[in-house]
Amino acid sequence: MPKTNTINGVSAPPAFETLRTKLAEIHDLVKTAQLLAWDQQTIMPPRGGEARAQQLGTVGRIAHETFVSDEIGALLEELRPYEESLDRDSFEASLIRVSRQDYDKAVRVPPELSSEITRTGSRGFAAWVEARAKSDYESFRPWLEQLVELKHRYVDCFPPADDPYDTLLDDYEQGMKTAEVRTIFDRLREVLIPLVEGAGSSATPSVRGHFPAQAQRALSLEIVRRFGFDETAWRLDEAPHPFASSLGTTDIRITTREPESSLDGLFATMHECGHGLYENGVDPALERTPLARGASLGLHESQSRLWENLVGRSRPFWSWFYPRLQKTFPGVLLPPAEDGDVRHLAQVPGEE
Amino acid sequence: MPKTNTINGVSAPPAFETLRTKLAEIHDLVKTAQLLAWDQQTIMPPRGGEARAQQLGTVGRIAHETFVSDEIGALLEELRPYEESLDRDSFEASLIRVSRQDYDKAVRVPPELSSEITRTGSRGFAAWVEARAKSDYESFRPWLEQLVELKHRYVDCFPPADDPYDTLLDDYEQGMKTAEVRTIFDRLREVLIPLVEGAGSSATPSVRGHFPAQAQRALSLEIVRRFGFDETAWRLDEAPHPFASSLGTTDIRITTREPESSLDGLFATMHECGHGLYENGVDPALERTPLARGASLGLHESQSRLWENLVGRSRPFWSWFYPRLQKTFPGVLLPPAEDGDVRHLAQVPGEE
Repeated sequence: MPKTNTINGVSAPPAFETLRTKLAEIHDLVKTAQLLAWDQQTIMPPRGGEARAQQLGTVGRIAHETFVSDEIGALLEELRPYEESLDRDSFEASLIRVSRQDYDKAVRVPPELSSEITRTGSRGFAAWVEARAKSDYESFRPWLEQLVELKHRYVDCFPPADDPYDTLLDDYEQGMKTAEVRTIFDRLREVLIPLVEGAGSSATPSVRGHFPAQAQRALSLEIVRRFGFDETAWRLDEAPHPFASSLGTTDIRITTREPESSLDGLFATMHECGHGLYENGVDPALERTPLARGASLGLHESQSRLWENLVGRSRPFWSWFYPRLQKTFPGVLLPPAEDGDVRHLAQVPGEE
Repeated sequence: MPKTNTINGVSAPPAFETLRTKLAEIHDLVKTAQLLAWDQQTIMPPRGGEARAQQLGTVGRIAHETFVSDEIGALLEELRPYEESLDRDSFEASLIRVSRQDYDKAVRVPPELSSEITRTGSRGFAAWVEARAKSDYESFRPWLEQLVELKHRYVDCFPPADDPYDTLLDDYEQGMKTAEVRTIFDRLREVLIPLVEGAGSSATPSVRGHFPAQAQRALSLEIVRRFGFDETAWRLDEAPHPFASSLGTTDIRITTREPESSLDGLFATMHECGHGLYENGVDPALERTPLARGASLGLHESQSRLWENLVGRSRPFWSWFYPRLQKTFPGVLLPPAEDGDVRHLAQVPGEE
């Protein structure tokens, strides 16, 4: 933990230490819920699902109830003058500010609703996995409807916004409005569609072939170890929908999916490794505080895409990696050109 | 959940339903703590240890605090006449009785102490794993001393017993006294030592050879699948000290350890599978209640040893299994005799 602020020789008031202790315990619960969810999505025996949904619901509710308690509200109020006396970017001011933002939102949501959303999400996940395996959307539809209905009830806890989605978007990208996102995407569409169409026949097709999952996993690990993945603080597992989760700044869990008909899994791994690197890069001094997380989903995604696209689809990356890939799948991929240049290899995914 | 009791046409009082709901949530927390511990002992990246100790401490403390609350105490008091009106072995009477036994013990222990025991146990585990790898007892000694000291503080929460260990033993084997255990072991020693000495030269030596862990794992799985292990509700993983954990009646996690110089790992797997079968055999109607557990450690161990020894070291078992083992490790184990009898195979562990 960072030392307490001693600006003007004044140390943090006792209320700050109390708040920090409470928030550390709530953080433990939030991270515990992340383990429950990670385990469910990666390695849990399928029939463990019903007990798991209950466990997630209970831990989520207790985390929520503890956070929205009158005690936390009173501490945040009491600490307002202290916060205002500090540099905005100091650890103490940031902890109080971010906690207050979270608190002002969480306090509007009944713990039973947040618990129901978690439980239903967990059960819906199990239903989705089954439906996905059978390409059977109809069996998932009732779960999706129930989740949308619950999200509407969540939105109803907040003052009306220009767009109902504004309330949900704010949880991922603070202050961003649906209308702004639409403007951005409209502009991107204007530019990108002609660009892709213009590229036309010169665009590289996807790599096709048979790539055994185990060999892909070894390559994935070879790549992410170069990015910063390290077995003492990371895991790489399989999940039906890849995600990254941090159970601590030095317990980073990334997941991937390796369909054997393509090499898309390598890019999923690089993407999730980017998320993991962002979480792994959090100052250990912020451990067990609500500051130990990404600043927003947009920033998080910028990190994952940096590694997936700016690194993982770059020519320098492929100059290093293509020979390894070719060696692993000798019958499937063309050998590199004699000058080591990979530009002419139509099967290589990425830049042109 | 079992239907509420309707003896004499009287349904359970509301206090019973309230108690059941509270106990279900506490059970969720207890099982969540078991996942945190299982994960730490099997697959967690080692540098996740410090955050994990905090998570375990927090979840354990909240479970403890919630359980010893005045509310639970009042509900148990209020339900005394209802309990007395019921058949002792009914679900309702059992739930109230077992919860009261647990409560009367838990209420004596400050939540901060129980949390400290959990946290220190978790940190001590990490230290033990390192010390064990280096055969360095001295580096583990301070942790052991601290844990013993904490256990003494735990014992001090209870009325003095004939032997301080009586208090600890009662947590595993209700009502059992250290002196009784001593009497049993003294008598066993009288009989067993001469028996083993008398068997002398005819005792079978351990199997020795090189048995790759991966091949052992496949054999372990082949065995436990015959015992009742099933991938939809079970997992088998590696742990430095094998154990079994149930995160639900249909989420059973067993662990094993496969040193490659012997086949001891197969027996560890069978042993833990026995524990798992006991937990998997709990009536699903008891899920999310404190009745969803073994009746005592002695009974638990009777189940694990039944599968390890009465089945796993029996002639019928080896008549089936030896050919499989021999086929897996053809250069190491002798082929079975022509009549299929394995008695003469000095390397086979087990009965004579």
